Amino acid sequence: MYKLIDGINTSKIILKECEDYLKISNKKLNLSVIQIGGDIASTLYVNRKKKLCEKLNIDFSFYKFDENANEIEIIDLIDKLNNDKNVTGIFLEMPIPKNFDKEKITSKISVYKDLDGISEVSIGRLVRNMDCLYPCTAYGVIELLNKMEIELSGKHCVILNRSDVIGKPLSHLLLRNDATVTICHSKTKNLKEITNMADILIVAVNSKLFIDKTFVREGVILIDCGIHVVDDERRIVGDVNFDDVKEKCSYITPVPGGVGAMTTAMLIKNLIKASEMYG
Amino acid sequence: MYKLIDGINTSKIILKECEDYLKISNKKLNLSVIQIGGDIASTLYVNRKKKLCEKLNIDFSFYKFDENANEIEIIDLIDKLNNDKNVTGIFLEMPIPKNFDKEKITSKISVYKDLDGISEVSIGRLVRNMDCLYPCTAYGVIELLNKMEIELSGKHCVILNRSDVIGKPLSHLLLRNDATVTICHSKTKNLKEITNMADILIVAVNSKLFIDKTFVREGVILIDCGIHVVDDERRIVGDVNFDDVKEKCSYITPVPGGVGAMTTAMLIKNLIKASEMYG
Repeated sequence: MYKLIDGINTSKIILKECEDYLKISNKKLNLSVIQIGGDIASTLYVNRKKKLCEKLNIDFSFYKFDENANEIEIIDLIDKLNNDKNVTGIFLEMPIPKNFDKEKITSKISVYKDLDGISEVSIGRLVRNMDCLYPCTAYGVIELLNKMEIELSGKHCVILNRSDVIGKPLSHLLLRNDATVTICHSKTKNLKEITNMADILIVAVNSKLFIDKTFVREGVILIDCGIHVVDDERRIVGDVNFDDVKEKCSYITPVPGGVGAMTTAMLIKNLIKASEMYG
Repeated sequence: MYKLIDGINTSKIILKECEDYLKISNKKLNLSVIQIGGDIASTLYVNRKKKLCEKLNIDFSFYKFDENANEIEIIDLIDKLNNDKNVTGIFLEMPIPKNFDKEKITSKISVYKDLDGISEVSIGRLVRNMDCLYPCTAYGVIELLNKMEIELSGKHCVILNRSDVIGKPLSHLLLRNDATVTICHSKTKNLKEITNMADILIVAVNSKLFIDKTFVREGVILIDCGIHVVDDERRIVGDVNFDDVKEKCSYITPVPGGVGAMTTAMLIKNLIKASEMYG
């Protein structure tokens, strides 16, 4: 019988801890969010962050650029926010339109305020086990595993994703916890042979219901980072075919209510850490 | 019948290319090497670099600190070298004595002069596929595979090492070439099961003759980064038991004459790249 890994409840616990910390420390934090272009999902996430900040009494600043904006203006804003002592953390909403130089823009965010751990200095520090802010989704996965008291040392973790914000940072967070790590992607051959070796399988393939029971061995811990809206926007599913695979799992994340529910909580946790990094 | 991966000949070819480039471009480069303490192997490597620089008409500067030196002096020197336009690249000899803050010292080396790709900015840029200098040993492994025209895309590469200068950077260089990558280490369980899946097995376990034929499948490409002096210093062996395993391999590196022979060549290649990064 599988156990559900409950992202909603876990994120509530984390947010409660954050709320208590903010009350006791009497810190006034500021979250500055930048959006370029008008991606609908991204707009939804901005609003969610805004509401959460109101609830937690965190100052929220929002900067929106249209997709024809001048890149220099955006970089100037980041410079200004980096140097503004009232700004605790900066979050750049993804995706950003393709006509912008994502690498150049994200590189400008100060390592002390880089709430999604996206600059090369943040990820370099993560790789070297130095203090830094972790990308929220990768951090959320680790936090879910920790809160369920799932031992990572010696476990074979297979990650189906090699992006800068999920697969790569997650591989280093897992290595740091003494896990054996395999990174697979679209060019991987014999994928099933590899996924069937996993003690923990983490899936972010952006393909709905991709993982069924033939991909996993009995007792696997299955983490689904996918999110897809289906049935005329009435239902949300993940990259994992939950009903098909669940009975083979020891633990499994639902979608919705799994990893996706963790990201804003991890963002607030990063915001508090950013306030401590500054001293 | 296995093929030998010849590090000596490959490094000669690379050094010849470097020599030709330096003659044609008429560039005068400077390699600045820093050594802290008097590690014997490290002193040997310093001398090897010095000789190579003389041969290639590269200016060589050497800075030696004893193991009781003041850390601030070393950092001041790095600052000075970073800002000196006549200095093309900086190489800090490893190991450095344990009483020094390795993280702090290596972090100071400018990303433009970081010849062993060891600062967090260098490794962060490597992870994000941005332009940077790669750690010499990891770079040497990739270069050997490339020169042998071994296809990496879709290959399952298993790395037995998770250090900042071999396992971690190598995993990202391999991912960038569309390989599937597994990182194993001392805490890995079922090691043989995993190594037996490898199309390419890269070994840096610092344990002499550790890998025998039971670790690999027929046709494996086997890369040995180990180096051990045995038989009263009369013989050098690697982490791989070459004679036991060779007949199962399609390609295999000898020790000596494999990966170890590549590192100084990669250092010179990095020095030239550093001169180009500056413009």
